Amino acid sequence: MSHPIIFDTDPGVDDAQAIAIALRHPEIELLGLTTTYGNVDVETATHNALLLSELAGRDIPVAQGAAGPMVKDRHPPPAHIHGANGLGDITLPPVKGKAEAVSAPQFIVDTVNARPGEVTLVAVGPVGNLAAALQLDPTIIDRVKHVVIMGGSIREGGNVSPVAEANMFNDPDAASRVLTAGWPLTLVGLDVTHRCVLTDAHMTRIEAGQGELGKVLAGSFAFYRDFYREFLGIDGCCPHDSCALAWLLRPELFTTARGHLTVATAGDARGQTIFAPEGRDFIESRWSRTPLVEVCLSVDGAAVSDWIADTLS
Amino acid sequence: MSHPIIFDTDPGVDDAQAIAIALRHPEIELLGLTTTYGNVDVETATHNALLLSELAGRDIPVAQGAAGPMVKDRHPPPAHIHGANGLGDITLPPVKGKAEAVSAPQFIVDTVNARPGEVTLVAVGPVGNLAAALQLDPTIIDRVKHVVIMGGSIREGGNVSPVAEANMFNDPDAASRVLTAGWPLTLVGLDVTHRCVLTDAHMTRIEAGQGELGKVLAGSFAFYRDFYREFLGIDGCCPHDSCALAWLLRPELFTTARGHLTVATAGDARGQTIFAPEGRDFIESRWSRTPLVEVCLSVDGAAVSDWIADTLS
Repeated sequence: MSHPIIFDTDPGVDDAQAIAIALRHPEIELLGLTTTYGNVDVETATHNALLLSELAGRDIPVAQGAAGPMVKDRHPPPAHIHGANGLGDITLPPVKGKAEAVSAPQFIVDTVNARPGEVTLVAVGPVGNLAAALQLDPTIIDRVKHVVIMGGSIREGGNVSPVAEANMFNDPDAASRVLTAGWPLTLVGLDVTHRCVLTDAHMTRIEAGQGELGKVLAGSFAFYRDFYREFLGIDGCCPHDSCALAWLLRPELFTTARGHLTVATAGDARGQTIFAPEGRDFIESRWSRTPLVEVCLSVDGAAVSDWIADTLS
Repeated sequence: MSHPIIFDTDPGVDDAQAIAIALRHPEIELLGLTTTYGNVDVETATHNALLLSELAGRDIPVAQGAAGPMVKDRHPPPAHIHGANGLGDITLPPVKGKAEAVSAPQFIVDTVNARPGEVTLVAVGPVGNLAAALQLDPTIIDRVKHVVIMGGSIREGGNVSPVAEANMFNDPDAASRVLTAGWPLTLVGLDVTHRCVLTDAHMTRIEAGQGELGKVLAGSFAFYRDFYREFLGIDGCCPHDSCALAWLLRPELFTTARGHLTVATAGDARGQTIFAPEGRDFIESRWSRTPLVEVCLSVDGAAVSDWIADTLS
């Protein structure tokens, strides 16, 4: 069985790992990479998406999208985590190709409508491109097969505020639109990505298995891992974005729950994903008025990390 | 060693259990009960505080306080949880005494100033009386020994909204004032109170050990336990308010962390206690600008439940 996907991304070190999986895994049909600002500015994201595809010997359409959030001011990219070039500031080979003429939102709409009921959207950055696609054509919610979002946090707390995860925080208005649109959706957040650790041993296997692409993955990994060591005391890094693909291909490694999401767009909790479990009553009925979605609550983190290394070895 | 305390309360079934502990435990010197709206209206809270003290054969000062929140509208009391009379709608004996002439905030200020450095404030309802005491005399923060608050939630989620605990939700403006005042403070929230379950077997022992007071504790418990059974599927009830006293007398049963609290006073997260662990950096520096406090993160719930029953047997 093959999953036709559009991978919406802001590469980014852990994005690069996930893009490699999307390029290599036999059960994924990668229809396109759509890019957004987030870990880097959108031009850098597009450059890196093209580069990674070329290093894998593939010719995948890359469509450029959001340069900033829908409503709020943009936060500066976190160069101390991903490097100024998004790939750990290693020297990168030149890029030959260029982005599609159509924008990311238009690419999403066109691709979904060309293959109704087949396409899964996997978004691992701020979700402005998905929100813009909904604005172009709200009816795609009936033709998308599934939406998988790396972002948010149910019980784990945040990583850019005590309650907010970076992708949701970077564009909470877009996140609110996308997470409450009513399409079939699974949120893969910090509750599971923080349980997965990619180590030097994993990366040694990946580097050996991926040729020129492997050199970029390993070089950027070293930079990212040093951030984790210094700031979080972890000996390795969390492969956040690969977890979204792990959920898609190995859902049996995850435990999930159904419920209603509200994204706080203002106030102290800005960017928080607030989860009301299905069937649970609270004083105010509004918590259960948003459509039902699925959220990941726990994971076999060691199995996911091994699956990433196995896929890329 | 004895702990001189003022117990600020809105009895309330689980409040009644905690008041019984405060009245009976040899290591507690109960200086007074101060009452607030919350589980019941404030007049009922005062009535019940007087009654419980009299049933225990004690003559404890009772000072009436806040009839509603500082800023927001009052929510109606949850009669389906505590009964319209706060004690499970059982028939209650008449009360003989009456409340002090001074209000709860004034009683707190006078008592703290009379015994500087000695008095611990234990608050298990909305914290408007503590906020009002700070407004009367902000300098009491230097003379209170410790403040123990039953309320809030760090990782557990809320009980009246997906993120807010009832006491914080009932008066988030007062909670923000009290939790960030800069006095030595420990938050005993749902992360630990939800791990403790008082069962029929515990209550049988308590009823046998407490005479007339035991009849009221057992009768009100039955009503409260039925709510837990129907709405939460638990065979027993969470003795939330007794956990604050358990932390005071048996702190070794709890694991705690130090950090900074922000109480959301508006927006989707209203009433949420947002916790930034000490030393953890986030994008915005404001999270670490509030004074350091202590929060409970986990507990030996079985040991706390047994301690409650042992204390009252």
